[in-house]
Amino acid sequence: MHPIRPERAAHEGGAAGAPLLARHADQTLTQQLFARFAERIHQRLLAPGTRLPSVRECARRHGVSPHTVVAAYDQLLAQGLVVARKQRGFYVREPVGSATATTPARHDDTPKAPLPNSATMLIRGMFQPPGAQPMPGLGTLPVEWLDLAVLSSALRRVSAGTRLGALALRYGDPAGDLRLRNALATRLTDHGVHAQPSQIVTTIGATHALDVVTRTLLRAGDPVLVDEPGWSVEYARLQALGMRVLPVPRGTEGPDLAAMEQLLRSHHPRLYVTVSVLHNPTGASLSLGCAHRLLKLAQAHDLMIVEDDTYSHLAPAYLPRLAALDGLERTIYVSGFSKILAPNWRVGFLAAPPSLVDRLIDTKLLSTLTTPSLTEQAIALCLEQGALRRHAERVAVKLDAARARSVRLAESVGCRFAATPRGLFGWVDVGVDTEQLAQVMLDDGWLLAPGALFHATHRPTTLMRINFATTQDGRFWRALDNARLLV
Amino acid sequence: MHPIRPERAAHEGGAAGAPLLARHADQTLTQQLFARFAERIHQRLLAPGTRLPSVRECARRHGVSPHTVVAAYDQLLAQGLVVARKQRGFYVREPVGSATATTPARHDDTPKAPLPNSATMLIRGMFQPPGAQPMPGLGTLPVEWLDLAVLSSALRRVSAGTRLGALALRYGDPAGDLRLRNALATRLTDHGVHAQPSQIVTTIGATHALDVVTRTLLRAGDPVLVDEPGWSVEYARLQALGMRVLPVPRGTEGPDLAAMEQLLRSHHPRLYVTVSVLHNPTGASLSLGCAHRLLKLAQAHDLMIVEDDTYSHLAPAYLPRLAALDGLERTIYVSGFSKILAPNWRVGFLAAPPSLVDRLIDTKLLSTLTTPSLTEQAIALCLEQGALRRHAERVAVKLDAARARSVRLAESVGCRFAATPRGLFGWVDVGVDTEQLAQVMLDDGWLLAPGALFHATHRPTTLMRINFATTQDGRFWRALDNARLLV
Repeated sequence: MHPIRPERAAHEGGAAGAPLLARHADQTLTQQLFARFAERIHQRLLAPGTRLPSVRECARRHGVSPHTVVAAYDQLLAQGLVVARKQRGFYVREPVGSATATTPARHDDTPKAPLPNSATMLIRGMFQPPGAQPMPGLGTLPVEWLDLAVLSSALRRVSAGTRLGALALRYGDPAGDLRLRNALATRLTDHGVHAQPSQIVTTIGATHALDVVTRTLLRAGDPVLVDEPGWSVEYARLQALGMRVLPVPRGTEGPDLAAMEQLLRSHHPRLYVTVSVLHNPTGASLSLGCAHRLLKLAQAHDLMIVEDDTYSHLAPAYLPRLAALDGLERTIYVSGFSKILAPNWRVGFLAAPPSLVDRLIDTKLLSTLTTPSLTEQAIALCLEQGALRRHAERVAVKLDAARARSVRLAESVGCRFAATPRGLFGWVDVGVDTEQLAQVMLDDGWLLAPGALFHATHRPTTLMRINFATTQDGRFWRALDNARLLV
Repeated sequence: MHPIRPERAAHEGGAAGAPLLARHADQTLTQQLFARFAERIHQRLLAPGTRLPSVRECARRHGVSPHTVVAAYDQLLAQGLVVARKQRGFYVREPVGSATATTPARHDDTPKAPLPNSATMLIRGMFQPPGAQPMPGLGTLPVEWLDLAVLSSALRRVSAGTRLGALALRYGDPAGDLRLRNALATRLTDHGVHAQPSQIVTTIGATHALDVVTRTLLRAGDPVLVDEPGWSVEYARLQALGMRVLPVPRGTEGPDLAAMEQLLRSHHPRLYVTVSVLHNPTGASLSLGCAHRLLKLAQAHDLMIVEDDTYSHLAPAYLPRLAALDGLERTIYVSGFSKILAPNWRVGFLAAPPSLVDRLIDTKLLSTLTTPSLTEQAIALCLEQGALRRHAERVAVKLDAARARSVRLAESVGCRFAATPRGLFGWVDVGVDTEQLAQVMLDDGWLLAPGALFHATHRPTTLMRINFATTQDGRFWRALDNARLLV
């Protein structure tokens, strides 16, 4: 048995937007309630370890008798989907028979590294088929904000006639398509980052770039600094590679440098992975002063920094990048085009100090050999001809309006922003535990991104991340306002 | 300073096909000789640790005085490209200041894992720009054997009009494009492998599939069985991930099962990575009896097997696959389209036991998120409409003729095949040390794949791998016949 894949969930009516329990249906209310929980557990929208609502609470939410809930929970228990803990209620069970059967005994204290719950929920959510209503928890731009015509035209032009031969029949340059690397070198100067094309390596999205960098610079057991809150998929990957994740509190100006210095002294990490501009989830950007002090600290402790600039196209060009200050000496710059042009084309890149480029290419070769030139050249064309820049400007205008409206709506129901709203994400305090809130809202078909998803270790929080592009709908905020009363 | 990338090598005249030393040139003979060695060291065609020819030998080969050679070697020494070992000659130096500066101290006995020399040379060779003459050492079909029209038509059809939207603007299904997975499930039945589309996960070429499998099932420090001789890039990746590579001698019928049983008893590995059909480099395929005994052994020792069927399209369908015998219970089947259709599109896949699929998808998500649907759907179309099958049949006919001719030429100069010639690769005994031979032949512009490249630990051998598609040229065999006299 394995969790239901999105395409199947689509046919079966995904958890988001699931209908309320129906008294007139073919199934009993117990069966319906059981089926709803079972489906969410399979889809990992209820992650392993999550506590189910109490019987009383669940009965109240769904307007059924406690007896119905007990019967449904018993069925979940019988099927091994949940476990009962004495006096504490029901908890979603860890996946049955997954790792143990085929994974050999540990030779060290490396974690067994299943995908942490927090990452799972959000990452699976990213790939849900489009539902009836916007998904305020997702981290992507709405599809209708993207520009298919630009992509179509670029793809047609680079692949016309026999040109496709060079983009298909040979393995291609291990560093990536030269035309794209040239265009990127030019584009990076907009941010004050000066990289030769030979310092740039293309990848399968920014995710692959981060994977290549960490596999090149770190080994299992090594400590690594990350921002907290931060992007949980990054924590999950580092942990799956057996690395020791050391969270550094992230403030509105940047990382807490005093805390970082302590970690540097006690653990001697050699790498810090950070989103400097339009940080996910807070939306905050590194101040110039903090960037300067961070680089001095890095120098003193021989620390390399991976600067993940995934949201670069949504950020004002004047926001300082570490790679610009530092001249790519001890920073590796990572970005891509999934958040602005074509998520599924999976085009990303890194720009690194010259002395590291060859080792990074070797790691890339070992993980995927080369990367597809077809989409890389199409993206190059979008860069060269200014199509990407014009598109990004249009998106920025739309996003500004969306943000203004979302902020107004959020504040009208008493929510408070923990950092000045900027870019795509807002980090908002809703006044109740957001993990509980997320479960209640899911019953209404709204997928949230509760704050706990952005922490390396589980902690309850009243903060959550919203996507300004998908929270302009007054119905969402009214639903949230009502749902808070149920938490 | 970092090694010269292929695109630069192309402008500067690659090592393969380098002109002989010229007395009338602007540069002195010493400078020319120095430059030639320096370039090969940068391109890693002379791998770290390789011994340079003796002064006397080098002088004889190039028709220059020993004094000229000594001066060139001294220059290499002065630039730190080689080291001198007393009474033993000059050796190519390990890359300067690579790992040490930025890699933290080891916490275990994990190897530092630079790309092993053997893998480097061959893998870089794969990406050399096309030279004037065929490259008998490379593992790919000649570009002119591939079929651009089939790819063009498929790409145009899947991306026409607004169809591109679904292949670009959303992240796509984490398991991979459903249309391709359906087509693959059908295709696999040709080999007797029965997989549901839900058991199939698409990847960035077969390389990425192998990477995903090993990262899911193994951790740093774990032992893993591999074929020897075998594909050195596989050794390199496993070693870079910190795994302990345990080579199993590979015979013409399959792995040496007695040796494997000993390793199973003493090291308890949980995974065996193997090419069962048209094994690289020997071209041999697993016999039915050996396959059966291997699976019984795997059962007894709780061993999983990754069956790498990269060359499946060049093999007769009747050759037995482990995944067919075993019903994908403890085998994971891996293949792709780089060797038959479109190397640069990087489309590969794996088919796995249902219980493992979700963990494999999680690893895929952490390494690249999703994979591009555009090329996956285009490949699906080639499969559905029989275009791939017809193309593969045409290639097989061509390859049969090429093989017959290459074998005849090889035998005419006294070479002997260690396994019955089949598929793309011949494993041929040329009677002299093939690593030395490779250096001499490189001076004439022929890139060889000496047998030492296919071993996990360095050992001299008179065997080498040839590509039947690129050894039909009588000039190559005459050059080889002459070169043997110089070794």
